[in-house]
Amino acid sequence: MPRRHILRAQQFDMELLKTIFRRADQFAIWNEVPWMKETVRERCRGRVQVSLFYQPSTRTRISFGIAAHRLGIHVEPTENAREFSSAIKGESLEDTIRVLNAYEVDLIVLRHYEEGAAQRAAAVSSCPIINAGDGPGQHPTQALLDLYTIRQSHFEIDGITVVIGGDLTRGRTARSLAYLLSKYKDVRIIFVAPPELRMGSDVLDHLKEHGIAFAEHDVLEDVAPDADVVYWTRTQTEHPLDGIDDNALQARYCIDEHIIDIMKSDAIVMHPLPRNSEISTAIDGNLRAVYFRQAGNGVPVRMAAIEWTLGLL
Amino acid sequence: MPRRHILRAQQFDMELLKTIFRRADQFAIWNEVPWMKETVRERCRGRVQVSLFYQPSTRTRISFGIAAHRLGIHVEPTENAREFSSAIKGESLEDTIRVLNAYEVDLIVLRHYEEGAAQRAAAVSSCPIINAGDGPGQHPTQALLDLYTIRQSHFEIDGITVVIGGDLTRGRTARSLAYLLSKYKDVRIIFVAPPELRMGSDVLDHLKEHGIAFAEHDVLEDVAPDADVVYWTRTQTEHPLDGIDDNALQARYCIDEHIIDIMKSDAIVMHPLPRNSEISTAIDGNLRAVYFRQAGNGVPVRMAAIEWTLGLL
Amino acid sequence: MPRRHILRAQQFDMELLKTIFRRADQFAIWNEVPWMKETVRERCRGRVQVSLFYQPSTRTRISFGIAAHRLGIHVEPTENAREFSSAIKGESLEDTIRVLNAYEVDLIVLRHYEEGAAQRAAAVSSCPIINAGDGPGQHPTQALLDLYTIRQSHFEIDGITVVIGGDLTRGRTARSLAYLLSKYKDVRIIFVAPPELRMGSDVLDHLKEHGIAFAEHDVLEDVAPDADVVYWTRTQTEHPLDGIDDNALQARYCIDEHIIDIMKSDAIVMHPLPRNSEISTAIDGNLRAVYFRQAGNGVPVRMAAIEWTLGLL
Repeated sequence: MPRRHILRAQQFDMELLKTIFRRADQFAIWNEVPWMKETVRERCRGRVQVSLFYQPSTRTRISFGIAAHRLGIHVEPTENAREFSSAIKGESLEDTIRVLNAYEVDLIVLRHYEEGAAQRAAAVSSCPIINAGDGPGQHPTQALLDLYTIRQSHFEIDGITVVIGGDLTRGRTARSLAYLLSKYKDVRIIFVAPPELRMGSDVLDHLKEHGIAFAEHDVLEDVAPDADVVYWTRTQTEHPLDGIDDNALQARYCIDEHIIDIMKSDAIVMHPLPRNSEISTAIDGNLRAVYFRQAGNGVPVRMAAIEWTLGLL
Repeated sequence: MPRRHILRAQQFDMELLKTIFRRADQFAIWNEVPWMKETVRERCRGRVQVSLFYQPSTRTRISFGIAAHRLGIHVEPTENAREFSSAIKGESLEDTIRVLNAYEVDLIVLRHYEEGAAQRAAAVSSCPIINAGDGPGQHPTQALLDLYTIRQSHFEIDGITVVIGGDLTRGRTARSLAYLLSKYKDVRIIFVAPPELRMGSDVLDHLKEHGIAFAEHDVLEDVAPDADVVYWTRTQTEHPLDGIDDNALQARYCIDEHIIDIMKSDAIVMHPLPRNSEISTAIDGNLRAVYFRQAGNGVPVRMAAIEWTLGLL
Repeated sequence: MPRRHILRAQQFDMELLKTIFRRADQFAIWNEVPWMKETVRERCRGRVQVSLFYQPSTRTRISFGIAAHRLGIHVEPTENAREFSSAIKGESLEDTIRVLNAYEVDLIVLRHYEEGAAQRAAAVSSCPIINAGDGPGQHPTQALLDLYTIRQSHFEIDGITVVIGGDLTRGRTARSLAYLLSKYKDVRIIFVAPPELRMGSDVLDHLKEHGIAFAEHDVLEDVAPDADVVYWTRTQTEHPLDGIDDNALQARYCIDEHIIDIMKSDAIVMHPLPRNSEISTAIDGNLRAVYFRQAGNGVPVRMAAIEWTLGLL
């Protein structure tokens, strides 16, 4: 069997997506199916996962940690490898991976601040690498759980209309989701962003190539009533861009009670979290607001993803 | 069953204190009772505790970690959530709690730098919250283990005389202990502190209301012979107060061989640790110096407290 | 049984080295011997190891973590105790050890920035201490795995010629290895270092005392053909020395294809890692380059070392 890394959202074909999502369906009812637990764990017993985080991400680390624990995998954590590890003594990422390989670990979950880091790690690793975010690059398991959440609400992804909005220049989750949606039939994407924060042309070109209908728009209010899914993202104020007043943007691009009221009754509002003011807490109780369920889906989806990398799926 | 949070020392009634302390008595002899281990663990198997520490506290984190491990609970640790988590991206504490709820964790042990944080977390959480210290506010499991340590030495808490001294303005453990002692009969409290670091009037008012006899004093030497318990605290030099020379205070308020010699033969010296020079290492070997045993009691008491939050006690 | 600490490389006699290495041989084939796993774990079940790291070292912490996990020992980690723990409130190392003792932990793996810290910890601890590096002092399990790696390739250590080179002034691994080699018969050591970074006179005096033949040399090329082992170390640029241009040194003292080509066919190149440019990545594929296998040996050797401290070996 060739090594099974998870590096980019685009690597998954429809067949594999289905397999992972069906397995995630089983894991999603984990607490209701006690008899499943021992069987699942038995297959992973004794395996070791290293969570190698060169960039902090408590949320991602904890959801991978819980996923591994439920599977019976032991996790060696590293909360801030950039600052703490031998990286400060000049060790290359490749050497760190080679040393972990020498420890015979079974899986490396890597978060890094540089685009392409996961690809570089995979090129030398003798065990699977899961890319848990590489700088402005990809975060494929986030894309998987986003798609899984859409499927949970709409059952079929073919034919839906998805509004993707917010900070489309700096947000990698929006980019990855657009790539994944391009695999489905008759999907329509409407990008909503201020002119300064539009979706990159590489993604738009990819959609054109795959014959995906898309449009770009400035004002959410105009397109919200058409959406089956509104996927909203945070203005990444921690990566400032020249000439952009992030606070003003956040105020203009906010999902509040008015927006959710004009949406279809079965539409959903998603967000990769953390959110700032771009989603009003006033809508948290609305059934269409699924962003916390979406975050929760990270655990079953990552359980299935880990099983796949280990050749168990 | 209503959600069982542990937020404030005052929330425990006498009945519950007795229940927790009796259970802690069993856990205190953990290594001597091998047959108990599997029974205890079986009930918690598969449960997940998140130690969400926005403020570092190695000691508290490790004792909660060992307590959870002995109970068979898996811990997802976060050593410095304030710096590392999505908090730096502006996520509210409430949202972080909601995400952990979505991961279906069973328990959140929260340490935070702001007073009232645990209360805010509990207001939105669907799983129990244990307050492991909220800034200048409360640290209720520390108060429990303090009381447990007194009970270990004196059997009955009713009727004892407790000297509480040191930095009573900035020390939350001293405050919590005073609150808890007010539940017992005929307890006498003598506060010993320099005028600048006296116990807050809220605590004194509470004692008056509950008819607890108390006095305030400047000099430990004068009152040490009366004490059944001397509970001493550290000058919190990391939170400087205007016009106070902490080094001078520490030198004046020191428990040394002279002080311990004038204490009753069955009296005990307690300290929440860490200590600086306010307790001389020269008395460490004295049988009346119980502060390390007190720290060790953190494990069995927290085991019992965790069991209670999970509805197992 | 007296407490079994691991504090200095010199503490091991030949008999004990043999015992540890034979046990490591069993652990080195861990994944091939499934039936061994349960037996090994049964003996350690319920034990707790605290990894108390006052200085970051991801590699060492993870290899001790994996070693403990395989033995069935639970680990409470502390990635940066210096910054995070009550050390910043002025707690002494001795008090921290006493508190961990009160928690009834079974083993403390200590990394500290001050020479002699492990010795100080051991002086007060009621459980075993393993020194995982104390500043410029010792790192005895690294020395064990270095020796184990030599034994793996040459079977007998008696009679071999070892070139130890690089930064011999600031590198503690080179020092510890020299001490350990002095226990074997007819070993010849050639130190290769620029005049500014020579091996300390304390080590040279020790070798003279024990009748070990040694020489000092400036140029690796001249002595590489004689070596059975070339043990190379990194220029510790993070601890700058007056008047030394580390970059220039690193360029002059580099093991590349030319050097490895003039070595004996069964000679090996070792390095404690992390490396910078002093070992060319071009030789990574060469069978004589064993530094990643050497790192990997950290797990089985530390498993055996831990078992010994617990009285199980």
